[in-house]
Amino acid sequence: MAKAKGTPKNMLIAQSGGPSSAINASITGAIARGMASTKIRNVLGAVNGMQGFLDRKIINISDQMKTSEDFDLLIHTPAHALRSSRYKIPKEGKEIYGKITEILKDYDIGYFFYNGGNDSMDTVNKLADFLREAGEDITAVGIPKTIDNDLELTDHTPGFGSAARYVATSAAEVYLDTCVYPAPAVTILEVMGRNAGWLTAAAALARDTGLPAPHLIYLPEVDFDPDNFIVEVTRLVEKERHILVAVSEGIHTADGNYLADTGAAVDMFGHKTLGGAATELEKLIKEKVKIDGIKTRAIQLSTLQRAAAHCASSVDLAESYQCGYRAVEAAVNGKTDIMITIARISDVPYVVRYDEGKLDDIANKEKKVPAGWITKGGTDVSEEMLTYLRPLVTGETSELLKNGLPRFFQFDLEKTVMPWEVK
Amino acid sequence: MAKAKGTPKNMLIAQSGGPSSAINASITGAIARGMASTKIRNVLGAVNGMQGFLDRKIINISDQMKTSEDFDLLIHTPAHALRSSRYKIPKEGKEIYGKITEILKDYDIGYFFYNGGNDSMDTVNKLADFLREAGEDITAVGIPKTIDNDLELTDHTPGFGSAARYVATSAAEVYLDTCVYPAPAVTILEVMGRNAGWLTAAAALARDTGLPAPHLIYLPEVDFDPDNFIVEVTRLVEKERHILVAVSEGIHTADGNYLADTGAAVDMFGHKTLGGAATELEKLIKEKVKIDGIKTRAIQLSTLQRAAAHCASSVDLAESYQCGYRAVEAAVNGKTDIMITIARISDVPYVVRYDEGKLDDIANKEKKVPAGWITKGGTDVSEEMLTYLRPLVTGETSELLKNGLPRFFQFDLEKTVMPWEVK
Repeated sequence: MAKAKGTPKNMLIAQSGGPSSAINASITGAIARGMASTKIRNVLGAVNGMQGFLDRKIINISDQMKTSEDFDLLIHTPAHALRSSRYKIPKEGKEIYGKITEILKDYDIGYFFYNGGNDSMDTVNKLADFLREAGEDITAVGIPKTIDNDLELTDHTPGFGSAARYVATSAAEVYLDTCVYPAPAVTILEVMGRNAGWLTAAAALARDTGLPAPHLIYLPEVDFDPDNFIVEVTRLVEKERHILVAVSEGIHTADGNYLADTGAAVDMFGHKTLGGAATELEKLIKEKVKIDGIKTRAIQLSTLQRAAAHCASSVDLAESYQCGYRAVEAAVNGKTDIMITIARISDVPYVVRYDEGKLDDIANKEKKVPAGWITKGGTDVSEEMLTYLRPLVTGETSELLKNGLPRFFQFDLEKTVMPWEVK
Repeated sequence: MAKAKGTPKNMLIAQSGGPSSAINASITGAIARGMASTKIRNVLGAVNGMQGFLDRKIINISDQMKTSEDFDLLIHTPAHALRSSRYKIPKEGKEIYGKITEILKDYDIGYFFYNGGNDSMDTVNKLADFLREAGEDITAVGIPKTIDNDLELTDHTPGFGSAARYVATSAAEVYLDTCVYPAPAVTILEVMGRNAGWLTAAAALARDTGLPAPHLIYLPEVDFDPDNFIVEVTRLVEKERHILVAVSEGIHTADGNYLADTGAAVDMFGHKTLGGAATELEKLIKEKVKIDGIKTRAIQLSTLQRAAAHCASSVDLAESYQCGYRAVEAAVNGKTDIMITIARISDVPYVVRYDEGKLDDIANKEKKVPAGWITKGGTDVSEEMLTYLRPLVTGETSELLKNGLPRFFQFDLEKTVMPWEVK
């Protein structure tokens, strides 16, 4: 069916990468703006990211979100409501981009949005390039998301603040738990972050509650020195008796070996046991720290830290929503090959503006913690880091509870639509 | 200094056993009632339970809590504000009870309160017996506390509801995280409870959020059958693709071996690795479940579940406060050798009354989940269980936040007092 110039088009949104508790706030903003736009007919969603899109697993979101409560609930629902995928488009992806374009045209999609991290931005970047070269009137815009906070050009990423709030809160709480017995005790909190230590650094905010914890913070940006670790733990336990150590999952020694991979443990089936960095440090303390009666406990925050919508930062949810909302505004105004970014104007009072970054400058890059923000020989973070982090975790979550438990919005992901149903 | 009959006496409170996020609500209630009573002069606290008491580590709480905000903050501070101990009074403890009595008299204490679980109630019981036999005019009253919910005579225990709320909330959240990728996936959530499965059962409340998780629930009250586990996981993953398993740390096979102890893994120093029950189940699935591409993840809720004041149940905090408050009321009215209990009058609307239980009937006993409340061959819990659990997790926590992070009350535990300072 041929359309006149200016005829409304469909928009499609998909999600990719690892979960966060704010990723659905971003699509909520995009969906809301899309449903209100005269340039957009239907808001479509692909299930399981690009992988599902290629299988034409496409639902009509405009048909599934009816009440304002649906929108409120979606904002507070953790993990990809549209599901995710680990699918990476092959380097020589011309054929794939051709297939993507074919499906986009089949469904009369004029605006394509991908909500994810570095890899996802690479996909949008390549797709936008392809569409432009092919002369297609389809825009492709990225919406940032990652608890790792490692995207370039943006002050911080949607999802980071909520995970940071959970990490800081949990660090404070488990430190208090660590202190209750007279025996000397070390708790090691393992935080996500393979290459970038932003989220682990957020544990330092626990000190804002008036506690002295964490006492040691290890980020993957600095080579980990086991001997120095033993010296520091011994010194601090002798001085403070109860200490908390925050550690990134990705810490590694100078030779590049990840701590999490060094465990030679083999289970009853002969499989190598993946201990995790904290478990390795626990073993190291048990072996090397000679303090009578010392108790050591490793805690992996695991997927709890990225799914804990009940501890989300309302600042983060609001910003995540805005990134989705503004991506749609930009796209209907003809922008393509960009990602919405957040620029910080002021720390106190906390003020940001939204901007647009070229995907070429974002895709496949990783923003790490600056060396100057890591202090005390790689065992702590600077005041600049705390000033940077503080506004991101603020704001109580206004959860929508029922009998004390959360409520979620869920799409009917089986209810896929055919192209002619959305023409 | 001799006192006339009716002269106010000091009261002393101490805490013992494992932490919870509501234990300080109980001492807040006791302190508030004590400070308001004309029969009580000073509210004293022993640091590190009976162990610290025997070392005369006694602080004057009346001097340290000044504002209503102090009381509000203490209610919301997790883990023992007065610290705990693992000290158990020896069976033949006459000598110890003599020493305790001597310190009680030295500090002119007329009312002794111990806030803890089964072991702590045994201590109070023996002390109360000793005091009565010795003709001392000192009462000893127990204030219940345990996230395990395993105390007899009380419908449930202070601290349980908050931990249950955290477990149910986290179960729902990590299940959503489990679902995001197309690959089949199993998440195994390990919950505290060595002999009683109450807290693990609370994961079933995640279904009240509209989710199908958890799919399997294993309590220590039922012998664990590894073969049946493999059959059930295989069946459910083939049917549902993504599943959540909730498991008590204390599950064991019919021969009495704890799953958590069966790991033959040895680390790089030749130490046995304590895997935890969930980690053992993860290994079992990796070895025995033959489903292509299946991903398995074990998550230990560790001390997070008992320290998560940010996810406390306000019903639990209010009840915990009441138990402390009423313990003091009972004591000043001459009651001794009792523990405050909660009796449930009605599920919907939820109504309780507070009562007193004889310590002889509580000490050293463990209330387990009734067999009739465990269903589906030991893989689920009944509707009676859900009806029992629901009111306990209700109520949003009214945290006292500063910049999005919790605030805590902390005693100056070093500021101990001598007997003549509180005469």
